[in-house]
Amino acid sequence: MTMNNYIELINDKLDEFLQIEYPHALFKSMKYTLMLPGKRLRPVMCLEACKIFGGDIEDAIPTACAIEMLHSQTLIHDDLPCMDNDDFRRGKPSNHKVFGEAIATLAGDALLTYAPHIIVKFSQNLSPSVKIRILNEYFKYAGAYGVIAGQVVDIESERNIKIENKEETLNYLHIHKTSDLFQLAMRTGAIIADASEEQLECITDFAKKFGLAFQIADDILDEISTFEEMGKTLGKDKQEGKLTYVSLYGLENAKCKLACLLDQCRDIMVKQNFNSNIFNDIIDNISKRAGI
Amino acid sequence: MTMNNYIELINDKLDEFLQIEYPHALFKSMKYTLMLPGKRLRPVMCLEACKIFGGDIEDAIPTACAIEMLHSQTLIHDDLPCMDNDDFRRGKPSNHKVFGEAIATLAGDALLTYAPHIIVKFSQNLSPSVKIRILNEYFKYAGAYGVIAGQVVDIESERNIKIENKEETLNYLHIHKTSDLFQLAMRTGAIIADASEEQLECITDFAKKFGLAFQIADDILDEISTFEEMGKTLGKDKQEGKLTYVSLYGLENAKCKLACLLDQCRDIMVKQNFNSNIFNDIIDNISKRAGI
Repeated sequence: MTMNNYIELINDKLDEFLQIEYPHALFKSMKYTLMLPGKRLRPVMCLEACKIFGGDIEDAIPTACAIEMLHSQTLIHDDLPCMDNDDFRRGKPSNHKVFGEAIATLAGDALLTYAPHIIVKFSQNLSPSVKIRILNEYFKYAGAYGVIAGQVVDIESERNIKIENKEETLNYLHIHKTSDLFQLAMRTGAIIADASEEQLECITDFAKKFGLAFQIADDILDEISTFEEMGKTLGKDKQEGKLTYVSLYGLENAKCKLACLLDQCRDIMVKQNFNSNIFNDIIDNISKRAGI
Repeated sequence: MTMNNYIELINDKLDEFLQIEYPHALFKSMKYTLMLPGKRLRPVMCLEACKIFGGDIEDAIPTACAIEMLHSQTLIHDDLPCMDNDDFRRGKPSNHKVFGEAIATLAGDALLTYAPHIIVKFSQNLSPSVKIRILNEYFKYAGAYGVIAGQVVDIESERNIKIENKEETLNYLHIHKTSDLFQLAMRTGAIIADASEEQLECITDFAKKFGLAFQIADDILDEISTFEEMGKTLGKDKQEGKLTYVSLYGLENAKCKLACLLDQCRDIMVKQNFNSNIFNDIIDNISKRAGI
């Protein structure tokens, strides 16, 4: 499978799993942000993790799609006026600009319930106990101990709430806000492929480092990129005095840290025999875009 | 078990299942609305449904608590300025008045993930396949086909979006906004008690009618009650031209419909041999408060 094959497969399945039903405004709002063209990195990496450990990617499709739905939910709520107040997402008006704040809030809520339901309903080849294991991972990384914890600390950092240890806080928020979804994606892919505990540890380590790299690249791109390239408002981090890798360590140090993390990812792949052009391409692409 | 025993048990378990962890603002916000003194009707009715079909209520406690967490989430997001914009809930400032809109939004999101995780983590005596069955019910009634669908139609009705068939729309929004959580509570209680399909149908019918009655009583109380009695801003339905049973049929007809539904609930109990003082007391209490 090439990257484009994966993206096409995921887009088809997302479209199939989320049909417009009554009340139409709700489903249209849920689907609007979900179907904006994106790189689909999280579901791709879920399917690819399943594949490198010898699993059948068909079995991982509902989980991969659920993770993309969850990601989409975080974008909808993040863009709300009471949060980051962003008018654009992937080059288009953000959800609440199209559907209003109330429907956008409810569409996010609905995706939070819809996503794990997809895992329960459509994972026909997974036994109930594997499904429960996957859901346990999902809830752990998605909720108050995962992505949402990261978002809260991100908001606190933006609002200049007194931060005692900035390095530790930045690390915490990057791990939870960004790495957690990559860890969730690759761990569940591996679990569906029945990977060993040791393999699971390696892919988790890889995912954690990749997630950190991805977030540092995002911090760098917020500084050096343009609206046309990113499809969202840029330079806001600096403007709002947000705690980012660039604001804390400077642009050059951020690039250096990013290069180091991406090298560590490549090392893990070689040592653990992760035979994946997809992972390699994704890593190279991040490296190129961030100009390192 | 008396009503007070049940409430005490549920409060203790909610307190135990949701400890304050880092980031503290998030967990405090999640717990604030959850622990406001309430009647705990949904979890009580879940446990009682389990009991009348011969189940062990211990087995249903995580599910009952999850449903209360979900209910609490709907209150937090409902009160937000972009939704109903309510400053009070159960006599106290609403969540966003205490924690701010961003944290209140994220606390609601976190509860949406935390609640089903409680079912997965703490239902030790349920087999994986029963857990999956419970989660399937949970996601069906909680999400875009259930409670959230009801909230969307409620908002559309408030905003005077053209409604073609008001009676049908009102019925739809009452069933989803209110009945669905009662159906979820009693159905899952019954499933945990291993009730037959026939028993499940009867308790679903009972829950649906009870939920409708509960919502009509709420519409009536919004018209005739006081802030001190209800702990929330009243008279808003009328002020905002909201579609309610009272606005559509008038106060007397609403009372008549409520009396009829409560009688139907009592009939089901007699016919099906639901031996439950708790259900009887709850029904009588609603009847009394609504002045019928």
